[in-house]
Amino acid sequence: MNEKLNLTMLTDFYELTMANGYFASGMAEDTAYFDLFFRKIPDGGGFAIMAGIEQVLEYLDNLSFSERDIEFLRSKGIFSEEFLKYLWDFKFECDLWGVPEGTPIFPGEPLITVKGPVIQAQFLETMLLLLINHQSLIATKANRIVRAAKGRGVMEFGTRRAHGASAAVYGARAAFIGGCIGTACAISERDYGIHALGTMAHSWVQMHDSEYEAFKRYAEIYPDNCVLLVDTYNVLKSGVPNAIKVFKEMKPGRTGIRIDSGDITYLTKNARKMLDDSGLADCSIIVSNSLDEYIIREVLLEGACINSFGVGERLITSRSEPVFGGVYKLAALEKNGKMIPKMKFSENIEKITDPGFKSLYRLYDNATNKAIADVITLDDEAPPSGDNYEIFDQHISWKRKRVSDFYARNLRVQLFDKGRRVYQSPGIDEIRAYCLKQVGTLWEEMLRFEYPQTYYVDLSKDLWKMKQELIKEHTR
Amino acid sequence: MNEKLNLTMLTDFYELTMANGYFASGMAEDTAYFDLFFRKIPDGGGFAIMAGIEQVLEYLDNLSFSERDIEFLRSKGIFSEEFLKYLWDFKFECDLWGVPEGTPIFPGEPLITVKGPVIQAQFLETMLLLLINHQSLIATKANRIVRAAKGRGVMEFGTRRAHGASAAVYGARAAFIGGCIGTACAISERDYGIHALGTMAHSWVQMHDSEYEAFKRYAEIYPDNCVLLVDTYNVLKSGVPNAIKVFKEMKPGRTGIRIDSGDITYLTKNARKMLDDSGLADCSIIVSNSLDEYIIREVLLEGACINSFGVGERLITSRSEPVFGGVYKLAALEKNGKMIPKMKFSENIEKITDPGFKSLYRLYDNATNKAIADVITLDDEAPPSGDNYEIFDQHISWKRKRVSDFYARNLRVQLFDKGRRVYQSPGIDEIRAYCLKQVGTLWEEMLRFEYPQTYYVDLSKDLWKMKQELIKEHTR
Repeated sequence: MNEKLNLTMLTDFYELTMANGYFASGMAEDTAYFDLFFRKIPDGGGFAIMAGIEQVLEYLDNLSFSERDIEFLRSKGIFSEEFLKYLWDFKFECDLWGVPEGTPIFPGEPLITVKGPVIQAQFLETMLLLLINHQSLIATKANRIVRAAKGRGVMEFGTRRAHGASAAVYGARAAFIGGCIGTACAISERDYGIHALGTMAHSWVQMHDSEYEAFKRYAEIYPDNCVLLVDTYNVLKSGVPNAIKVFKEMKPGRTGIRIDSGDITYLTKNARKMLDDSGLADCSIIVSNSLDEYIIREVLLEGACINSFGVGERLITSRSEPVFGGVYKLAALEKNGKMIPKMKFSENIEKITDPGFKSLYRLYDNATNKAIADVITLDDEAPPSGDNYEIFDQHISWKRKRVSDFYARNLRVQLFDKGRRVYQSPGIDEIRAYCLKQVGTLWEEMLRFEYPQTYYVDLSKDLWKMKQELIKEHTR
Repeated sequence: MNEKLNLTMLTDFYELTMANGYFASGMAEDTAYFDLFFRKIPDGGGFAIMAGIEQVLEYLDNLSFSERDIEFLRSKGIFSEEFLKYLWDFKFECDLWGVPEGTPIFPGEPLITVKGPVIQAQFLETMLLLLINHQSLIATKANRIVRAAKGRGVMEFGTRRAHGASAAVYGARAAFIGGCIGTACAISERDYGIHALGTMAHSWVQMHDSEYEAFKRYAEIYPDNCVLLVDTYNVLKSGVPNAIKVFKEMKPGRTGIRIDSGDITYLTKNARKMLDDSGLADCSIIVSNSLDEYIIREVLLEGACINSFGVGERLITSRSEPVFGGVYKLAALEKNGKMIPKMKFSENIEKITDPGFKSLYRLYDNATNKAIADVITLDDEAPPSGDNYEIFDQHISWKRKRVSDFYARNLRVQLFDKGRRVYQSPGIDEIRAYCLKQVGTLWEEMLRFEYPQTYYVDLSKDLWKMKQELIKEHTR
């Protein structure tokens, strides 16, 4: 999957009609600022997890227009030859800032800001959204499922139900960032170092004359790690007894059984007892049938005896909410060296945007290191500081809170400087560890699956003032 | 996207552990039959649409193990050198039969059958499921949305919310098969000939000093086809009046307005009146805000004035049901020239499979050409025929029906013959036309979005008898 692909034409066609328009209007070199942000946390959760930055960097490293692209565009008959020449000579010149992968994120925050010639900054819209929306969706879902498992391992098992090849591979990557311990997908280990494992399908059992023979043969071939799928015929009457027999005869290094159908609580409780009674207390029980965070929470509350989970379709598609609604909006324009903040007004009030070139800070309590609030400021403001810093809700501006004894962390890093990449993605294990650590800085009330405590994401006074003035101007 | 990628390692790891196991057990050359089928129609609909065959063919054309794959597998430390040598020398030898893209399909039907050496036939599982599940999901959803639009055009607009690059590109392809008239995604036109179009984002309007100027400039640059986005500030007070002014001044060849927020019914009714009153009855109204088949049906019932729809996230993710549950199960085994039918029993009754090497027929009424029922037979049976052919429900076997005056069509074509491709995919326009025609052979009662009439998918008497015998044997 990491063969270098030119995905430049993987873009909404309107990015090209607009680009040609800017070019024709002599606006090609005007500098624009675009923010990528999202509006709603999936599944009614308390936060989302940022993911997809590494693929954004790869995409930008490979951004160029091939002869085939130019020919295709020419064939549409609406683009000027001068514009096509511009694309042919295309050199990426933008600045980018972004929130590193694995960071808990909240609605309205500028997760990525792109500054550059309007044609270029606009053009990035489709792919940036595609990449960040997808991986943030899956990392967010994975983190919910991992939290439900309460320390038990969660494997990503969804390749066959993913929406195509990239959904499988980058979905496995995002699931790992969100806290999964591995994947069933081989290519994700080859290319991303995400531990891949898997043992047998029902067909292995069916291919042999009996379940016992199938298990025994498997234990002979894989004496070190022997996980047997016990639900091809009947879990408690056939699968578990045959597994126990084989484990006792063959004494594999590590033993486990997997159950992929039926009532998880009933079957695992009884299987556990049968295994324990046979002196196989070390044998793991793995379950894997259409799981998600709600089912996992439920069966654990019921006392199901499970060591680890394989989670497939409901993770890899984020079935309960398969849309991560990131958007990409113009925030400012530089014309003749002057910064003009821009806002989108809309028929839908929640679609109104924050203007200007902004920064994003997270305030942490000095004593507990817990996250207190995020503050969006104008880029040229000083970071939040002081012993009596006032934050307030932009929609209910009388709702104010004073915070002291905190430190502010700039949540964003620079990714590109005038087209030159200045950021190297950390390794995948490091991103995963960072994610789990950062989730640990959130108050427990925010980790709830439904109706979590709402986290403060506030605007600085200067930014709020700018926004109010633009609203006043617009409604005048 | 159609650069040739080696996706051989995009597979569940257990396909490889099993393959190594078959190899070690001297079973590598045993012939296995696997069926790909699905269990449940998404969204409670009456049928699904088959899609993804062309990508299956491409995948199989490129199936080989690279040096990098072999090195990766060797590093896992559990595969024998003899097995790795087998993979290195891998030559595809399977037979494949499949239902052509665009065909309405039903639960339990063998959509693809793979016959071949067990290692190979098993190995195809992950990618065949991935490709067929994804595209069938989107084609099915697209067809629902297209039916709701009642002849109005539906454009696929979801690239930015797709689950990665392949989800965008192949999703656009599947949406076209299901009846969409085009896509917003440029690469899908370049690579698949699916008409791509798009005009402007809100940022185009914001980049200019006024909405009027933005519209006028656009009309100057694109005088032939001028679709203006009218909801950046206020649809009825600003957007539509400015659009009308520009259309009258500039007289573009084709005119349209797009509304992307607000109350669709209210806004389109009023916009329509304003346009008509200004002599712009030819101006199209396009809407595009989080639509699906239910919203489209609703607003059309309310009398919304809409010429075409842009449907994004709810189509490209099939949001209401993002999982297409295709599975891949062993159906038979050939040992020493003898065919041994196989079934999977399970803790979940709906997971029990149909045994044997099978064929699939659709019976059409001679007079109306409407589809009457599908019949799954054993492969060596004669096709359903005669004037008094009895079909019956396998779960309620006393429920019988006699059909006469019909013709039977073999729904499947051979795709590969001993590893050699023998099928060429039709062009995408042909597939789309075939799909719409085949949907036209279904009774209207099956087209309902909820609680449609259930279509008959019956087993031949011989197949049913074989299944009953295997069940008896198993439960003895």
